[in-house]
Amino acid sequence: MSDSVKFLLDEREMPKTWYNINADLPEPLQPVLHPATKQPVTPDDLAVIFPRAVIEQEMSQERDIEIPGPVRDVYRQWRPSPLYRARRLERALDTPARIYYKYEGVSPAGSHKPNSAIPQAFYNKQEGVKRITTETGAGQWGSSLALAGALFGIEIEIYMVKVSYEQKPYRRALMETFGARCIASPSDLTESGRAILAERPDSRGSLGIAISEAVEMAAKRDDTCYALGSVLNHVLLHQTVIGLEAMKQLEMAGDYPDMVIGCTGGGSNFAGIAFPFLGEQLRGGRAVRCIAVEPSACPTLTKGRFAYDFGDTAHLTPLVKMYTLGSGFMPPGFHAGGLRYHGMAPQISHLAALGYIEPRSYNQLECFAAGIQFAKAEGIVPAPEANHAVRAAIQEAERCRESGTAKTILFNLSGHGHFDMQAYTDYMAGKLKDLVYDESEVAMALAGLPSVN
Amino acid sequence: MSDSVKFLLDEREMPKTWYNINADLPEPLQPVLHPATKQPVTPDDLAVIFPRAVIEQEMSQERDIEIPGPVRDVYRQWRPSPLYRARRLERALDTPARIYYKYEGVSPAGSHKPNSAIPQAFYNKQEGVKRITTETGAGQWGSSLALAGALFGIEIEIYMVKVSYEQKPYRRALMETFGARCIASPSDLTESGRAILAERPDSRGSLGIAISEAVEMAAKRDDTCYALGSVLNHVLLHQTVIGLEAMKQLEMAGDYPDMVIGCTGGGSNFAGIAFPFLGEQLRGGRAVRCIAVEPSACPTLTKGRFAYDFGDTAHLTPLVKMYTLGSGFMPPGFHAGGLRYHGMAPQISHLAALGYIEPRSYNQLECFAAGIQFAKAEGIVPAPEANHAVRAAIQEAERCRESGTAKTILFNLSGHGHFDMQAYTDYMAGKLKDLVYDESEVAMALAGLPSVN
Repeated sequence: MSDSVKFLLDEREMPKTWYNINADLPEPLQPVLHPATKQPVTPDDLAVIFPRAVIEQEMSQERDIEIPGPVRDVYRQWRPSPLYRARRLERALDTPARIYYKYEGVSPAGSHKPNSAIPQAFYNKQEGVKRITTETGAGQWGSSLALAGALFGIEIEIYMVKVSYEQKPYRRALMETFGARCIASPSDLTESGRAILAERPDSRGSLGIAISEAVEMAAKRDDTCYALGSVLNHVLLHQTVIGLEAMKQLEMAGDYPDMVIGCTGGGSNFAGIAFPFLGEQLRGGRAVRCIAVEPSACPTLTKGRFAYDFGDTAHLTPLVKMYTLGSGFMPPGFHAGGLRYHGMAPQISHLAALGYIEPRSYNQLECFAAGIQFAKAEGIVPAPEANHAVRAAIQEAERCRESGTAKTILFNLSGHGHFDMQAYTDYMAGKLKDLVYDESEVAMALAGLPSVN
Repeated sequence: MSDSVKFLLDEREMPKTWYNINADLPEPLQPVLHPATKQPVTPDDLAVIFPRAVIEQEMSQERDIEIPGPVRDVYRQWRPSPLYRARRLERALDTPARIYYKYEGVSPAGSHKPNSAIPQAFYNKQEGVKRITTETGAGQWGSSLALAGALFGIEIEIYMVKVSYEQKPYRRALMETFGARCIASPSDLTESGRAILAERPDSRGSLGIAISEAVEMAAKRDDTCYALGSVLNHVLLHQTVIGLEAMKQLEMAGDYPDMVIGCTGGGSNFAGIAFPFLGEQLRGGRAVRCIAVEPSACPTLTKGRFAYDFGDTAHLTPLVKMYTLGSGFMPPGFHAGGLRYHGMAPQISHLAALGYIEPRSYNQLECFAAGIQFAKAEGIVPAPEANHAVRAAIQEAERCRESGTAKTILFNLSGHGHFDMQAYTDYMAGKLKDLVYDESEVAMALAGLPSVN
């Protein structure tokens, strides 16, 4: 085991391919269904809103998919990202566990999201797309796509959940600084938005509604495509650069994880760090516990149903088989906007259903407490989303202390909290509460699942 | 010349010593004077508020001063920081110039300030100091010392200029997340603060006042020392790690700067990048233009007087020979809080007076425009302070285009703007104006300079 605290890969060792877990699944994924016909979607169906290269990746069974040169050129600005051994945190916890974290906050947008925004913008540009629409909740994805749009010269139009639009003006300013257009959702620009506003004029929006608006606007215009920041196979694929790097870095450290931990909203950062290790296991290699951590107030994997559902509120997206709380469910307003989504990536859902992924949920107060403990020890203030992973890592390290076992824990610190200091302010002032979701609302939303199930 | 855009030093090449420009000055600095006796201060005078190791560094004539192991251990978390070739900006400007920037925003506090906060906290801890007081304006320095305090287990008490305390709650939250105590200045905790409040109950504070309060509280208590984030020799010394790294990185790039550019408030980040190169020149090596960029609304180097003055408003600090607008001058409230200081580092002032440093000033609107142009090309949103350096680099690159000469430009991107998005919001909304300082106020402040001049 090395004595270092930082493991930096040489640029030349940055992965040249992403890892596609579809190639190693013990059973194939259920097909994606067309929302109208309920038949498996074809590439042509998807071409209304996605460029061909992205559709190919979405459906590919190839294990290793090449990262294009121009994408690698941009990645190189902050990648390979550092892997740290959290020695100061280990000392503070007095644990025999070895805690490593991969830090994705070093990207110019402050999170892992550019790992997929950059290739998505690149493929769109390559196919002559003029404009990309998307949605954003807390703003991590929106600002990453705005950044990618600026670098590749492509217009970005972002439907931002209204509550975040109002509460997070600085995230908005970041997107606008990169030249993107930011619209509060629900808006009166789309049929989906107008329908919501007609019913509930005071709607504060949701990711599900914002997705409907962005998809609608992409489908309507020939020169416009749509981009999603999580959930879909190609997004998870792009994020595997995280785990592939971490694997090489742990090799430098002379170590291998007993468990890999990530927070899960749509699932992209968790998949990004966990899939390369899980793939090893699926191919007969070393086994690893993969712990997916979600908020107790939006417990998709721990309390949801594994069923076909829509990705959005207006039911414009295809139907995917996933863990879901029902597309009609509106999660309460806790401070990890990136985790407020009714569904979960089909690949993660599938692997969780098969028992390869261990879901877990925490309340927000314990997550903020963990985040502050981490900040004091390691000097980095995590995003509220990432605090869920921190909480799990600390709990596992504490279990190691109690049992006297020296496990190796790897977690993904998916982003920094610089744009989330209001949440920390509220937490420190004692103004935050643990929120509970409305069980009857989930029951109703699940009762409304499409008839294909 | 290399084709890369990023030049990363191996950790083993991180400098083991800081560079002390005192060893190479063509004429020695004027002595620092005791505020009461007007005689040169002794180490014992300074020991009331500084640890011995810091005083030794402040007065040292040694060229290379060792960076202690525990400081290097913390530096290693983000150092060596990356040097980038701004190829996308070069293309956008259509310039034959080669533009490089050293990026200090990768530190956990988001700026260059931890380079000095870490060693200062270390030396204090080593000498058994329990608590450090300091001041902060925009909050870059305060959050860096808060970080350092958390890592070394030392209490941090921060007097934050009231206008920033109110306008920048997120910076305050960052300091508090690291466990520091943050007090709006002027406060009623100190005699200096009470005196100001008695005269002007609605005072919004200034760096000069906050320094007075922090110094007073350190002098009063045996277990407490004071730390300054700029101006003094030892602070500039610690920052030279920036330029020393940049030198090795430019060597990797096969290049050497024709000019080195930094923004200047108290002078620490400018000195950090420029002094190692200037030292080369002073020792008979290659000449380099060193361009110090300040705001037109606080034009210390370009319009101030080179004279003995106090560092603070209440006249508790020693007298130093520096460019100053007078310690009674209150700069207008432009959006680069880190550059709102009446004085300038004595070493920089001395070298500017001798003609080795080229001062320049810009208004804030042109600096924000430059910052946004930079963000769109390079993907990083600079702090408003750093925009001054960006503005100068772009102007020099444009001159290269006009004259058809391929100069090498190096500038310091001292920090990111994640905590300054309100300023960008205001700028994009057309709400910012160029501010002018009050010339009669400067005349009055200069007329009030101490009689030693």
